[in-house]
Amino acid sequence: MAAVSEFELIRRYLSAIGTSPHLVLGVGDDCAIIAPPADRQLVVTTDTLVAGVHFPPDCDAGALARRALRVNLSDLAAMGADVLGIQLALTLPAADTSWIAAFSAGLAADCEVFACPLMGGDTTRGPLAVTITAMGTVPTGQALLRSGAQVGDQLYVTGSLGDARAALEVMDASGAGGGALASRYWLPQPRLLAGTLLRGLASAALDISDGLVQDAGHIARASGIGCQIEIAALPLSEALTGTFERDQAITWALTGGDDYELCFAVPARHVAAAERALRAADQSFTRVGEMVAGQGVRCVDTEGQLVALAKEGYVHF
Amino acid sequence: MAAVSEFELIRRYLSAIGTSPHLVLGVGDDCAIIAPPADRQLVVTTDTLVAGVHFPPDCDAGALARRALRVNLSDLAAMGADVLGIQLALTLPAADTSWIAAFSAGLAADCEVFACPLMGGDTTRGPLAVTITAMGTVPTGQALLRSGAQVGDQLYVTGSLGDARAALEVMDASGAGGGALASRYWLPQPRLLAGTLLRGLASAALDISDGLVQDAGHIARASGIGCQIEIAALPLSEALTGTFERDQAITWALTGGDDYELCFAVPARHVAAAERALRAADQSFTRVGEMVAGQGVRCVDTEGQLVALAKEGYVHF
Repeated sequence: MAAVSEFELIRRYLSAIGTSPHLVLGVGDDCAIIAPPADRQLVVTTDTLVAGVHFPPDCDAGALARRALRVNLSDLAAMGADVLGIQLALTLPAADTSWIAAFSAGLAADCEVFACPLMGGDTTRGPLAVTITAMGTVPTGQALLRSGAQVGDQLYVTGSLGDARAALEVMDASGAGGGALASRYWLPQPRLLAGTLLRGLASAALDISDGLVQDAGHIARASGIGCQIEIAALPLSEALTGTFERDQAITWALTGGDDYELCFAVPARHVAAAERALRAADQSFTRVGEMVAGQGVRCVDTEGQLVALAKEGYVHF
Repeated sequence: MAAVSEFELIRRYLSAIGTSPHLVLGVGDDCAIIAPPADRQLVVTTDTLVAGVHFPPDCDAGALARRALRVNLSDLAAMGADVLGIQLALTLPAADTSWIAAFSAGLAADCEVFACPLMGGDTTRGPLAVTITAMGTVPTGQALLRSGAQVGDQLYVTGSLGDARAALEVMDASGAGGGALASRYWLPQPRLLAGTLLRGLASAALDISDGLVQDAGHIARASGIGCQIEIAALPLSEALTGTFERDQAITWALTGGDDYELCFAVPARHVAAAERALRAADQSFTRVGEMVAGQGVRCVDTEGQLVALAKEGYVHF
């Protein structure tokens, strides 16, 4: 046993992070108790980040906490959900008080930003890993699924793509440094507001964790159709294009992953309303293609010529 | 990358374990969607089991899955909740198909027994660990807390105590063998029915994971009073007393942990109704003491003499 017991750690740092009118009882009993809002469905998601696999073991603990939270909230955003709260399962090799203080401070800061109470969880000894289960709510029947897109629906993304992948080239081995690109990696923006605005307007949505091509492919497959992405339309940040060549930036935008932007399809009849709603709320978005007949994802250049993705990038036919 | 991708593993083995009229959408989208029953509060709990800390790395995968599920459902039982479903975060060192097949089979078997659908989760590569977040529901305001016990309330436990600790002495290094005691370790019985029957009758409840003395102490502290345990009343199984000396058995019953029986307090006015309800449902229970003025937990022998617990057991004054 370490000098500070598991229970002491929990009590000191993780007992009262965030509040919510829906949280009846938080950390401290066998379960948390939640009074969900009426006439709503619950949405639930779980993501695990493992040291040495998903993050450097010696990375900043506060940034790790914030990233773990945001990655989960991004899944809620992809359903068009409002945040209810999270459960945290934290596995630590040792009861390191300064580490858990930093982790808790990062988590608390973001839980406040996103009005997301820590409802409960478990702290265990073992190889460093963070598992968060996030819960949210949607008006009954209004969750955004991956499966509703139709041929002719326009395909959009929020924000810009490729930054998180580029960050891996500019950060040091512990994930430090790297400026604006690195903050896009460590602090992805869960597009919760955009997600709620798209309820009733988007026909399909998900968040981009594996790269646009792969994730747009998930929408296409779940919807039983295909998808076309226009290379020239891809939103690239100045931080990205100012640091890397354009071809490299496009490759990362298409395949890089970790961006946690929303990718969504909008039927023609809702395009004006969806764009108006997002613009009114100052939510950045870009049309990047459309849903097409067939299956799979194809990328085209400005002349409409097919562009093939190779493992390490893309090549013109 | 291993031969079988993470997504393939999930799709094959963990995509459709259990069903529920409340599960609108399960594994496969960004979130699961749940339609909770009306007029109910949600209860949520998370427990992590780490290889080498909470179980031998080479233990039976199916038993591990079942234990991980049952440990979580026990927390739902302690709140008096009905099961809604679980999220599973599974971290594996390699995409070992036979291991995950065995794990999934064990999980599926118990998910059926407990009418508990697997709603979603995450499979990651890393040191072996299992995190389950279990969700349940209670009629609004009727959850059993740790904090409601009053002086004079009678203290009960379900089932028998000490078996799980004794199992550690009779199993081999991989957790195999050990007969009846071992099955008490690997397959604790979440007392879900007893928990629901105690709603409106018990003043406080929890499940015994750290040993009766420590866990009864949690009820006492949360309720702002003390607790007295009668050594002679402790329920000991034949498997336990047939294998170990009585003093050893009592020590493990008091301090052993891992029993996952319920410990609950019942006000005098509800004692008859609570005992009748449990007996009618064939739920094993034993009165082991009562809540008293003061603080902390004291153990007494048949003459009412104080018994002191030493680190490795207990000694008479």
